[in-house]
Amino acid sequence: MSLLVVGSVALDSVKTPFGQVDSVLGGSATYFATAASYFTDVKLVAVVGDDFPECHLEFMKGRGIDLSGLERSHGQTFRWRGEYGYQLNEAQTLETQLNVFQTFRPKLPPSYLNASYLFLANIDPSLQSEVLKQADAAKWVACDTMNFWIEGKKEALIQTIKGVDLLVINDGEARQLAEEHNLVKAAQRILSWGPKTLIIKRGEYGILMFHADTVFAAPAYPLETVFDPTGAGDTFAGGFMGYIAQQDRTDPATIRKAVIYGSVMASFNVEAFSLDGIRNLSRDAIGRRYQAFSEMTQFEPQ
Amino acid sequence: MSLLVVGSVALDSVKTPFGQVDSVLGGSATYFATAASYFTDVKLVAVVGDDFPECHLEFMKGRGIDLSGLERSHGQTFRWRGEYGYQLNEAQTLETQLNVFQTFRPKLPPSYLNASYLFLANIDPSLQSEVLKQADAAKWVACDTMNFWIEGKKEALIQTIKGVDLLVINDGEARQLAEEHNLVKAAQRILSWGPKTLIIKRGEYGILMFHADTVFAAPAYPLETVFDPTGAGDTFAGGFMGYIAQQDRTDPATIRKAVIYGSVMASFNVEAFSLDGIRNLSRDAIGRRYQAFSEMTQFEPQ
Repeated sequence: MSLLVVGSVALDSVKTPFGQVDSVLGGSATYFATAASYFTDVKLVAVVGDDFPECHLEFMKGRGIDLSGLERSHGQTFRWRGEYGYQLNEAQTLETQLNVFQTFRPKLPPSYLNASYLFLANIDPSLQSEVLKQADAAKWVACDTMNFWIEGKKEALIQTIKGVDLLVINDGEARQLAEEHNLVKAAQRILSWGPKTLIIKRGEYGILMFHADTVFAAPAYPLETVFDPTGAGDTFAGGFMGYIAQQDRTDPATIRKAVIYGSVMASFNVEAFSLDGIRNLSRDAIGRRYQAFSEMTQFEPQ
Repeated sequence: MSLLVVGSVALDSVKTPFGQVDSVLGGSATYFATAASYFTDVKLVAVVGDDFPECHLEFMKGRGIDLSGLERSHGQTFRWRGEYGYQLNEAQTLETQLNVFQTFRPKLPPSYLNASYLFLANIDPSLQSEVLKQADAAKWVACDTMNFWIEGKKEALIQTIKGVDLLVINDGEARQLAEEHNLVKAAQRILSWGPKTLIIKRGEYGILMFHADTVFAAPAYPLETVFDPTGAGDTFAGGFMGYIAQQDRTDPATIRKAVIYGSVMASFNVEAFSLDGIRNLSRDAIGRRYQAFSEMTQFEPQ
């Protein structure tokens, strides 16, 4: 089934202890759509400026991503500049230029209106709600957010959250959003607002998923080379939602498998700058890493 | 098979956001021996002072712990005072009084010399080596340590590590010991010194175990009530080594199950102050939580 994502397409400049890159392809929708493209048809809604290199569009088209909903506006593309220390879990944002993203009002082209699965990447929660209203046919909706919106637009954000099936955020955001330090209690509070499922991303420590009365814990893949964690969360979400849309199922067993596929895609992503780790993966490589997750977590019953 | 532990028996004063206690039972050997006592016979080597309350000895004897190797010296018992913020992963030490522990030279009573399994809890690495020499019959030895010894007695510590089968430390200590931020590379370096197995404790994020060329990741149990994390690492080690000694096996499948039993015991421990969470558990309660770990981590093959 087809999967729709609304978010950012950006040009990133990133410095890590292992190197640096300038004005490379980035953005939440880009990472999401690329990861998801290994599993299902993806339709993207975002905006870029005059300066956005044609080669990036070619890359996304080459991965089968539908770009009918990608606006090109007059001005500069959204740009983000950040740096990571050896503690790679958290980026320090050095500069954010919203540029054409500042006046972006996502509008779904008619060909997008029948998408069954929807991911609202981290954008203004009011815009997320507008998209939700347009995407009538979506039968399963997930959204992401960030501390900026939790601090500045909490009411609008909670309205959005009430309308989605799944919220995907990191542990600090979950605590901040629920105003509760204990993660189990924070999860219970967030789930009481409406979503059936909450996925908490914990970077190098993996995923905790709360669903009905169950908890699922998945580790991150321990890597010898973590080069650049930018986009890991969106790549996780892309692998996750891509698998869900491919299977067209949202039962607990499928959701758990989707968490592992998301973790697999994120593990490839952090091994290189920009999207280089997930540009061209084989089905075999994805399958082998899924198998590695299985082996890494198995133990016998008591 | 019988299991020997050398470490501290202490009186702790602990403050957490949820309450505080003064001069309660604590110490690495105490937590370890109590957790292990649910699985096998435990022999303890440590020292206490004149002030050590008889009721604590009664408690340990009641759990079947052999105290023939517990010296009572003239002076005060080892005392530790610490505090935790809402970020419960790390204690702030407010005061350490070594007292009778300062001149402690562990000596194994004759009845201990045939113990098959040995745990060297966090004490001076030179003392750990001395114990290792005395415990001739031990066929599988694990040790713990801390940043204090990594900074102050690194050479002696590496000597100890060379002589053990398993090292159990936390992630910060592993990085500091190997002088390497990446945890996979840090693990490889530590394993190159001799131990076949390395267990890295990550507090609320669970365990990473490196063994030969495999990695095993186990989550911590997500709890609504984390009251006091003091002793969680030693309780983990106690459940782990207790199960190993009970089974008298150290094959990979048994070691993985032992990691889960260790995690189960640690999860009970943090639910209350001092040892109150593990004073009196039923086999059923332990079994149910092991089962909860299974359910929390299972996913289907691809």
